[in-house]
Amino acid sequence: MSIKVMKFGGTSIGDIRRIEHVTKIISKRIKAGDKKILMVVSAMSGVTNKLVKEYVDIENNIYNPEYDSIISTGEQYSSALISTFLNKNMITSRSLLGWQIPIHTDKSYGKARILNINSTYIKNLFKKYKVLVVSGFQGISEDNRITTLGRGGSDTTAVALSVALGLKNCEIFTDVDGIFTSDPRIVLSAKKIDFITYEEILELASLGSKVLHPRSVELAMKYGIKIHVRSSFNKTEGTIVLKEEKKLEKEVVTGLTSSENEAKITLKGIPDKPGVAATIFGLLAKHKINVDMIVQNITDDGRYASLTFTVPKEDQKKAVNELKISKIKFNKIHADNNICKVSIVGVGMRSNVGVAEKMFETLAKKNINIQVISTSEIKISVLIDLKKKNSALRALHSTYKLDD
Amino acid sequence: MSIKVMKFGGTSIGDIRRIEHVTKIISKRIKAGDKKILMVVSAMSGVTNKLVKEYVDIENNIYNPEYDSIISTGEQYSSALISTFLNKNMITSRSLLGWQIPIHTDKSYGKARILNINSTYIKNLFKKYKVLVVSGFQGISEDNRITTLGRGGSDTTAVALSVALGLKNCEIFTDVDGIFTSDPRIVLSAKKIDFITYEEILELASLGSKVLHPRSVELAMKYGIKIHVRSSFNKTEGTIVLKEEKKLEKEVVTGLTSSENEAKITLKGIPDKPGVAATIFGLLAKHKINVDMIVQNITDDGRYASLTFTVPKEDQKKAVNELKISKIKFNKIHADNNICKVSIVGVGMRSNVGVAEKMFETLAKKNINIQVISTSEIKISVLIDLKKKNSALRALHSTYKLDD
Repeated sequence: MSIKVMKFGGTSIGDIRRIEHVTKIISKRIKAGDKKILMVVSAMSGVTNKLVKEYVDIENNIYNPEYDSIISTGEQYSSALISTFLNKNMITSRSLLGWQIPIHTDKSYGKARILNINSTYIKNLFKKYKVLVVSGFQGISEDNRITTLGRGGSDTTAVALSVALGLKNCEIFTDVDGIFTSDPRIVLSAKKIDFITYEEILELASLGSKVLHPRSVELAMKYGIKIHVRSSFNKTEGTIVLKEEKKLEKEVVTGLTSSENEAKITLKGIPDKPGVAATIFGLLAKHKINVDMIVQNITDDGRYASLTFTVPKEDQKKAVNELKISKIKFNKIHADNNICKVSIVGVGMRSNVGVAEKMFETLAKKNINIQVISTSEIKISVLIDLKKKNSALRALHSTYKLDD
Repeated sequence: MSIKVMKFGGTSIGDIRRIEHVTKIISKRIKAGDKKILMVVSAMSGVTNKLVKEYVDIENNIYNPEYDSIISTGEQYSSALISTFLNKNMITSRSLLGWQIPIHTDKSYGKARILNINSTYIKNLFKKYKVLVVSGFQGISEDNRITTLGRGGSDTTAVALSVALGLKNCEIFTDVDGIFTSDPRIVLSAKKIDFITYEEILELASLGSKVLHPRSVELAMKYGIKIHVRSSFNKTEGTIVLKEEKKLEKEVVTGLTSSENEAKITLKGIPDKPGVAATIFGLLAKHKINVDMIVQNITDDGRYASLTFTVPKEDQKKAVNELKISKIKFNKIHADNNICKVSIVGVGMRSNVGVAEKMFETLAKKNINIQVISTSEIKISVLIDLKKKNSALRALHSTYKLDD
């Protein structure tokens, strides 16, 4: 049985006109020879935000099953509505909820992980229907309760279903033409990327880009699912996410991205003894504060060290407070919000030298001071003044010839 | 295990303030000794109307499973929200959807009937929770799909759960003080009824009153469940619906009601032969048009008859049309919309003579012409001019001493 998995995001089904358009896309694909289509749909745009807001007005803790039951109604609504449209257009269809398949998840309500999916039920339904419209983002726990996969989780539903059905491809329809070398609103010359590797997109995603749910990419990477990110608004070819080996031309830098979600904390005058850094980061970990970039300096006389690190903006106050009331010794603590992280990403970095130097050089020429640096095999991130963000992005975009 | 079943309608949980009030009602009942409470909840007021409207704008046929999947989200939302409030108030609680229990129904989507309910699951959950908040109005079909029971179906969910749990009582919380002798907006002296029988309320319901879902009353009658209809807005004692044998004082007339949902059709000059009436009503039945009241006259010479009957207003045009294009012979057809049906209901009629005469006399005194009469053991209905409705209701209310 040849099945195509196509996921449609919230703006692609944002109103009746958009849903009619998606119905046409499906209809054309059937006429072009696609026998069986498994659609995965998000809630209509704005719906989940509204439901979440209504909920958190009452209860802060979203990691409980009542939250999941409420916010899963967005996808329950959209899947049934789209199926109604398809049936009206003589395309046999039915909606499918997470628990109906079922998509088994763990019990981490509000951010559940898929454990397994029964594909037999889906295959049997395809004997009767041309199209199945699955509510994305949701599953069922061993306690027989609805779970949700976290914001953006419908991508993960689509890839997980592709895996369960033994497929090799998954299409993600969205409101942009694909994945770009940088944010087109800031870097006007940003270009759509034709091919990108799983590793690159994971670095881009965790660094602030919002094209694909990171877990969907991890899953696709693990099972070798080729993801095709494309627009439901036009016929542009989109971006294909695949294995590094299959990407023929490897640019040094594939894309660049920025994140404003970091805050910097600096501790000065820490006694330079073994174990001090471990004590500090142990304390923050205990309070569930994620530390990202770290840099440590030692004073000239070698007795004191200073430590600079970044935490999510929303945790900054808490981090400073916990450090102040702890037994950890330091002279001064300083927090800074007016920073941003700019990163370049590319699997080509692995086999190219001088990539970092070129980055630092470019920023120096623009008079942009680098506060902290962190690197991985395929990424270099620098922390800079927030005011310099756009200028840094534009200059780097040009340096790495992403404009061409 | 002592369990109380309490159903809350849409206005009782219409906004956050009302839900907080209901939380207080539950909290007080627990303090007063109720160990386990099974709440059944409707959607918050206005929600189902909104969902239905959005759906029928797209698809006329509401008897299909996509409709059920969409409109059941209203109760999914309210049950989870109420459970959240209870948990915040330290009352251990969880929401329960129709498919989670499960409440098995037939496959009549949009108007499903409950087939059976598994009470084991509920009883097990009560080992862990003080309160379970069941989404009313919904179940699951043998095709693993969500079904809904038709508008007002949450009453039926509540009574069916009482039956499944082997209980003898069921409380229905609403926005009125109970069931009234007549519509208080028309008859200012209308009084709350303390006790009413299942039969009486069924007659009142089918005649236009909207207090309880008729199927919930049928089910309560079959299994002897005492229904207590009461307000969630104040502490008035409400109305108890029970078996005739248990109602000690039997007033001749318990209540009176009116319906504007009828249209009258008159056929004149029908050949007075055996089988003519059967042909006419057979034709209407074939087109699924419900005929309610019927009266037949024969002309003086005995050769022709005239036939008057009522059909639902929305079927009037169709009925007239089908009769006109049929082979049935008649001279004239006449349709009238400006009518209403006024009914008096009471189990006491069984053992009292002169009830009907008193009714006709009262209307005559008010110069109200009776167009058609129909009677059952515990009810007398008359068809009158729509303009005379309020005056008829007020006069009859006084005649049968319902004002006292």
